[in-house]
Amino acid sequence: MSQKIIGVKASTGIAIGKAFLLAAPDFQIKMVAIEDTVSEIKRFEAALESAKLDLQGIVTRVEQEMGDDHADIFKAHLLVLEDPELVDTVKEKIEQEKVNAESAVSDVAQVFIGLFEQMDDEYMRERAADIRDVTKRIMSHLLGIAFAGPGELTEEVIVVAEDLTPSDTAQLDRRFVKGFVTDIGGRTSHSAIMARSLEIPAVVGTRVITDVVKTATTIILDGYEGIVIIDPSPQELANYERKQAEYAGRRVELAKLVHEKTLTTDKHHVELAANIGSPDDLAGVLANGAEGVGLFRTEFLYMGREDFPTEEEQFLAYKQVLEQMGEKPVVIRTLDIGGDKQLSYLPMPEELNPFLGFRAIRLCLDNQELFRTQLRALLRASVYGNLKIMFPMIATLEEFRQAKQILEEEKKGMLEKGIAVSDRYEAGIMIEIPAAAMMADQLAREVDFFSIGTNDLIQYTMAADRMNERVAYLYQPYHPAVLRLIHNVIKAAHTNGKWVGMCGEMAGDSIAIPILLGFGLDEFSMSAGSILPARQQISRLSLEEASQHTEAILSMSTSEQVEAFVKKVFNQNDI
Amino acid sequence: MSQKIIGVKASTGIAIGKAFLLAAPDFQIKMVAIEDTVSEIKRFEAALESAKLDLQGIVTRVEQEMGDDHADIFKAHLLVLEDPELVDTVKEKIEQEKVNAESAVSDVAQVFIGLFEQMDDEYMRERAADIRDVTKRIMSHLLGIAFAGPGELTEEVIVVAEDLTPSDTAQLDRRFVKGFVTDIGGRTSHSAIMARSLEIPAVVGTRVITDVVKTATTIILDGYEGIVIIDPSPQELANYERKQAEYAGRRVELAKLVHEKTLTTDKHHVELAANIGSPDDLAGVLANGAEGVGLFRTEFLYMGREDFPTEEEQFLAYKQVLEQMGEKPVVIRTLDIGGDKQLSYLPMPEELNPFLGFRAIRLCLDNQELFRTQLRALLRASVYGNLKIMFPMIATLEEFRQAKQILEEEKKGMLEKGIAVSDRYEAGIMIEIPAAAMMADQLAREVDFFSIGTNDLIQYTMAADRMNERVAYLYQPYHPAVLRLIHNVIKAAHTNGKWVGMCGEMAGDSIAIPILLGFGLDEFSMSAGSILPARQQISRLSLEEASQHTEAILSMSTSEQVEAFVKKVFNQNDI
Repeated sequence: MSQKIIGVKASTGIAIGKAFLLAAPDFQIKMVAIEDTVSEIKRFEAALESAKLDLQGIVTRVEQEMGDDHADIFKAHLLVLEDPELVDTVKEKIEQEKVNAESAVSDVAQVFIGLFEQMDDEYMRERAADIRDVTKRIMSHLLGIAFAGPGELTEEVIVVAEDLTPSDTAQLDRRFVKGFVTDIGGRTSHSAIMARSLEIPAVVGTRVITDVVKTATTIILDGYEGIVIIDPSPQELANYERKQAEYAGRRVELAKLVHEKTLTTDKHHVELAANIGSPDDLAGVLANGAEGVGLFRTEFLYMGREDFPTEEEQFLAYKQVLEQMGEKPVVIRTLDIGGDKQLSYLPMPEELNPFLGFRAIRLCLDNQELFRTQLRALLRASVYGNLKIMFPMIATLEEFRQAKQILEEEKKGMLEKGIAVSDRYEAGIMIEIPAAAMMADQLAREVDFFSIGTNDLIQYTMAADRMNERVAYLYQPYHPAVLRLIHNVIKAAHTNGKWVGMCGEMAGDSIAIPILLGFGLDEFSMSAGSILPARQQISRLSLEEASQHTEAILSMSTSEQVEAFVKKVFNQNDI
Repeated sequence: MSQKIIGVKASTGIAIGKAFLLAAPDFQIKMVAIEDTVSEIKRFEAALESAKLDLQGIVTRVEQEMGDDHADIFKAHLLVLEDPELVDTVKEKIEQEKVNAESAVSDVAQVFIGLFEQMDDEYMRERAADIRDVTKRIMSHLLGIAFAGPGELTEEVIVVAEDLTPSDTAQLDRRFVKGFVTDIGGRTSHSAIMARSLEIPAVVGTRVITDVVKTATTIILDGYEGIVIIDPSPQELANYERKQAEYAGRRVELAKLVHEKTLTTDKHHVELAANIGSPDDLAGVLANGAEGVGLFRTEFLYMGREDFPTEEEQFLAYKQVLEQMGEKPVVIRTLDIGGDKQLSYLPMPEELNPFLGFRAIRLCLDNQELFRTQLRALLRASVYGNLKIMFPMIATLEEFRQAKQILEEEKKGMLEKGIAVSDRYEAGIMIEIPAAAMMADQLAREVDFFSIGTNDLIQYTMAADRMNERVAYLYQPYHPAVLRLIHNVIKAAHTNGKWVGMCGEMAGDSIAIPILLGFGLDEFSMSAGSILPARQQISRLSLEEASQHTEAILSMSTSEQVEAFVKKVFNQNDI
């Protein structure tokens, strides 16, 4: 009997394949009294050796496939395996307490983990996680249970995990990943965004998937409907293979729009741009006919590394994107780290509410060396294309002024040294904090552009963490409060002759598109995979007609009302 | 040499006295090899006995002074001390591994704590904290270091702590507390609010106080300036004793206003109400001439207990407050739990961003039995005074409608049973989420009143956790974005003939008062201690003049600009 699991639609597409459970199995350790401690110690040593061989293999493979940096974490794990303090303590425990190796390893690891976790130093605390990983690896050999780490894919699979952290995805070998299914998260969790960016189907927030699926089980992942079918029947398989073919057909239809401009029926042009995380994403962006990059999330340049990227490394990445996009606009967002995105080499105190914490521009203004390095790289790259520099998480005018001033200082310094800087780059801000949306009239006088970051704007406006399933019902993109703020921002910008983009998930949403078009949004930036459907949708809409409904929409009182209205008036159902 | 520490002004007043360090000392445990394990076990047993005697004494005292419920936690600690699994494991460890009692206790505790912390069940996880407490108590006897728990005050002291949790303050014997000083927190942290409610001086967020002060050190706490002086010189002592007297003189001046109405120079009346946490606070409220209770935080009825308060218990508390306030309005807020306020008997999954999580009305609508019990208690009490029922954390109209419907259902059920319910109570909402402030025009049609909760409204509007010192600079009550939202709420309410109160910290702030008066705010609810200074201030202001500045204030672009303007125009400095 097949089993159907419902989750959140995170990235469209259908995948059929074998599940690969990323979570390490939950080992049940029992303490057993041992007579022959000599053999038991040998058993422990054998498990240790096997774990070392595993890791050496991984290091070699990761170095070849992903570069030296990515292998560092596994080298650190090898060092843990060779740590005499840990190894000898386990052996002593087996010998003196006459217990089985599993229980000795577990007890000793517990003590070490406890010690590291209590340390003040963030870096040392992270070592607790390394010991946990390594312990699991030893344990898997003692118990004969396969251990799966994220860097170890060797064939095409659908990755199943409780959640995917940025460091998990950094380690994933993308060639082998046909889809993601997770227990937790929503449409805007890291795993969902990553799936859309890789253009692979994903279902997140299933709550139970890791409990009900085992590695190598065949599953169907339907990212259109947010469904996962475990052990599908032959008929279900046939059904979904047919659907896969149909969707492929639709993609062929859409592909015809790749080189078209995005025009409404009344010939109004809006710009459809793509969100990217690295220069690697550009191929997909261009293949999907993006008219620009609306959001380059530079934090991915900083992740999965052991130290900050240098000015030169950043410059090369920005230059590559600008050059490849030619005359098309490229909005590059300065570092947005903190919150749910951490860097191992930039220790930050733990925060009770990281989404309301010390992140993005707040952190950059406080770590100016870090910020100035990035700004210099951006300014150097500015001569290679059509650059728009964007500051994230601006809450107050003072923050923008300070960031702008630092940018000007760096520009001046570079010009004095004879380094070329474009004279046409723009400096704008993300509107993702309610305060900034409320103050758009004042901000619009000083910035070159706005880009509305709806993911955060919605969560702050509704006071609902978008990653928290228990309040997910309050994450309402069509809520009139959110729409009023967005409308206010667009109106204020246009009054001051500035353009407004949107780079949150909402920009690619088929219910939101007619509303935003009517509000006058100039640029819609989305996952590359959403561009062609959006272009098709907009080519069937009239700007004049859409804008006639603005007043009615803004006077509605609930999200439900707005959604029903859009579906009725624009005959638009969520695709 | 005296030492001066700067913190956040949390509650006005000056205290001079001996410090009492609430934090348990950080024991440094060394492993020592022991020959005579028999004596060592005896030493452990003696420490165990002393710890038991401590706890029995505490139980007796707490039961007498604070009631049986408050002693439950200490009884639980006694059970831990008698747990054979823990006690025997320590003894075995001393005997077999020949180590000192301190290191054996520490190791065994570590394992137990680790086990409990890994459990899925919230209740069981909390037991880890109990073991930690009990271990510290045993350790203090082994090491001969005094152990200080919050329930153990016997003389007047200034409490010094890293932070004060609601459960700490529930255990404090208030008769002996002259002031609070903490390492962390801001003006709206629990410890600050509690200090204002108790009308004792407090300085919070000093970062270092627990590192630099020892129990029994003499300190001066200046809550007006946010300063703590450690080991003051005779001259400093004399200085502050004089200041204490001066402030006492000012209080006498203010006391003359107790029975006055709050009228502006142009005879406009505003209502000055008090925020309370329990019926015990009423004496202070009436002594300070409050014209009503603007916020009764009912969650304190639910805290420091082992189970939910019954309908009858709640009814008696609400009835007492309503009766004592007579015809004066009493706004009772339904349960606002979650976020930083947890109940030990209502396990909740840990949240990444609790301030954006499952709390207040969100939790109540999902736990209807809990909610209905409280509503029945409120309805029963409604006949004893002038009741306004207020729902917290309303983000959408649907939430208010659902809460209102449940209230109506309970009312209908009670009337059918012949239970008397007043026909004049009101049902309103807190405006503390940006979405609600934006939608005030729609909400105002259906609610009876609004009360603006500025503490949360500011933190969501600015996307800055008010408890997080690193982003404290963004917690800006005078930011024009916040003021625009407040103005929008008041305007929308008045258009619909509804009244608006404010129950956040801002309502008692001397810079905010002229602005809010000008906006037309009807009711200002604050700590009892702020009422008389606010009355004095308002009696010197003209409504007409204040409202003439509204437009100018709303068109300003920064908080700094607003503050400077108010100080200039109203000649008003922060008191």
